Amino acid sequence: MNYKIALIKGDGIGPEVVNEAVGVLEAVGEKFGHTFEYVDVLLGGCATDAVGKSYPDDTAEKCRTCDAVLLGAVGGPKWGSDKPAEQRPETALLAIRRDLGLYANLRPAVLRPAMADACPLKKETAEKGIDLMMVRELTGGVYFGKRDRYQTPDRGVECTDLMAYSEQEIERIGRRAFEMARLRGKKLASVDKANVLETSRLWREVMHRLAGEYPDVAYSDVLVDNCAMQLVRDPSQFDVVVTENMFGDILSDEASMITGSIGLLPSASIGDTAPGLYEPIHGSAPDIAGQDKANPIATILSVAMMMRYSFQRPGEAAAIERAVDAVLAEGWRTADIAGPGVTPIGTRRMGELIRGRI
Amino acid sequence: MNYKIALIKGDGIGPEVVNEAVGVLEAVGEKFGHTFEYVDVLLGGCATDAVGKSYPDDTAEKCRTCDAVLLGAVGGPKWGSDKPAEQRPETALLAIRRDLGLYANLRPAVLRPAMADACPLKKETAEKGIDLMMVRELTGGVYFGKRDRYQTPDRGVECTDLMAYSEQEIERIGRRAFEMARLRGKKLASVDKANVLETSRLWREVMHRLAGEYPDVAYSDVLVDNCAMQLVRDPSQFDVVVTENMFGDILSDEASMITGSIGLLPSASIGDTAPGLYEPIHGSAPDIAGQDKANPIATILSVAMMMRYSFQRPGEAAAIERAVDAVLAEGWRTADIAGPGVTPIGTRRMGELIRGRI
Ligand SMILES: CC(C)[C@H](C(=O)O)[C@@H](O)C(=O)O
Ligand SMILES: CC(C)[C@H](C(=O)O)[C@@H](O)C(=O)O
Repeated sequence: MNYKIALIKGDGIGPEVVNEAVGVLEAVGEKFGHTFEYVDVLLGGCATDAVGKSYPDDTAEKCRTCDAVLLGAVGGPKWGSDKPAEQRPETALLAIRRDLGLYANLRPAVLRPAMADACPLKKETAEKGIDLMMVRELTGGVYFGKRDRYQTPDRGVECTDLMAYSEQEIERIGRRAFEMARLRGKKLASVDKANVLETSRLWREVMHRLAGEYPDVAYSDVLVDNCAMQLVRDPSQFDVVVTENMFGDILSDEASMITGSIGLLPSASIGDTAPGLYEPIHGSAPDIAGQDKANPIATILSVAMMMRYSFQRPGEAAAIERAVDAVLAEGWRTADIAGPGVTPIGTRRMGELIRGRI
Repeated sequence: MNYKIALIKGDGIGPEVVNEAVGVLEAVGEKFGHTFEYVDVLLGGCATDAVGKSYPDDTAEKCRTCDAVLLGAVGGPKWGSDKPAEQRPETALLAIRRDLGLYANLRPAVLRPAMADACPLKKETAEKGIDLMMVRELTGGVYFGKRDRYQTPDRGVECTDLMAYSEQEIERIGRRAFEMARLRGKKLASVDKANVLETSRLWREVMHRLAGEYPDVAYSDVLVDNCAMQLVRDPSQFDVVVTENMFGDILSDEASMITGSIGLLPSASIGDTAPGLYEPIHGSAPDIAGQDKANPIATILSVAMMMRYSFQRPGEAAAIERAVDAVLAEGWRTADIAGPGVTPIGTRRMGELIRGRI
């Protein structure tokens, strides 16, 4: 097959990690007989610097001509909250999610065997393993709701953000999550705050309806505050977790940190039609940009997710994941994950080692 | 002094833990020369059972005749989300917060020395200690916003919850937090999502203005997703943390679990005028209700907070806290915190031991 891939290299360490992931794609192509074509797409702080806005007009259009999008990282102090919205990188992230209809954010939180020591939790807890998939709704809720700002007679300025969810939005993310649970451990926890929020009550109603259609999946409701606790107490209890946009933002980052391996975690953002968008969950780390220090593994594992979820190529995905595990098992580490006494290797060398294992 | 205290014993283990806390109050009264008068107030599931609604009409009025309110715990499966709102215990909690103007929720997350082993984090992290104070805004934001539910032409039912904050609401909680930081380690982290939410941008503007008035407090902004991670990575970095209602709900529970001592953590909810409300953060644990198994320490430490924040009696507060630490240091444990090989003591015995140390 020939696949056309949009590359959003972005800011900071973005270009370096994307380069290594492209190297891995090439190795996969060689081994499995695929060819890849690349289209560079400008987005983020670098776009602001080049054309004055973080989300150039033709971004979505260009991405739509591709089969998938690979994003390195965007953002940095240079384009902070003192700048107008159209110059800020996060504006671009929200816009591309909306324009490409990427309503499902898949965030695996996995403690890879070789990395057990990095887990911030007690040894007994780490030993039970962590392998959960957070499914975050990505284009609805309060992050996309109507905003307002106005003067009141007696309370100064007041601002509002509207949290909204429709049955249709909840049902499509719910189905994704139930299907995902079927492919994994057949357990789904749905996180809401149904004891307070009306959107959560609707969320729960729809999830319960779907649970009836998936009797083979063990379903449970978890309140968001309780979920934040359970992730710390015993993350091994979770298989697939589905939740709305903002709860998912908070809980998926908490779950990631609990594995201790932020530099290793990929993500996928997908909709009902191509292209899906794949990116590491880490940031742009401007302090180490251009120094061959960044860890490319999360971006490389994002390419594995691309193989699995955009191209239905589980064999290729597994080959990438096995290559990463093999290199880690041999003890190779970039600076971010090198424990005391371990000499770290650079971004390029890590990419090369993984390519060599495909 | 004579203090009049409203007792909301509530559901499940509520009555048992309140009884022990009252015993400690009496011991404090004897030692320091105060007298206490008690008024029983009905609220929660027990109120639903008795009078058909969880928040009887005269609740706020009765509380307002008192100097402070002590609440045990409310809730239970019997009054779940299948019941109408006015019968559910959480409705009553939200209502009393609103009616008594309890806009500041103080949630200390402390790893008491004798409890270090219970910490779910790595030993190295636990050894650095945890002693942070979460200041949660408690009467605004999306938990108190206008809710709506309507039919759409093409997306099924849609629901909304409005997140709103005014300058006045943010400023009053901000001042509480800065004042609290002054009395503690002089560090304040304010948590928001200013890269997305308009309410968070206003929150940040007001906090920055206040930071100018408190130059002796080291102030920082932390994004909510990052805070969820930092609490796991290194909770010792935090002193006082201030945030809006929903973020505070999630993060304060995460912080509590990180100490590993949910059964020991108290809370205070206060406004600009008396009475403040004091309660353990744990739930009503219906499964062990009435069996003399519950841990009364969180409720007893809530009484210490009452001494400190409602009655300006730091000496009395410290006496209670010292008594708790002494009993824990001697190795006495209720079932919830008894490690392997430790014979647990009951609710009453724990209360008695602590009273004996005042
Ligand atoms: C940058 C921000 C808008 C974004 C979000 O909260 O969605 C980020 O935190 C993420 O999780 O991808
Ligand atoms: C019961 C619920 C309304 C409440 C809240 O979220 O405020 C509880 O979780 C708490 O934190 O006190």
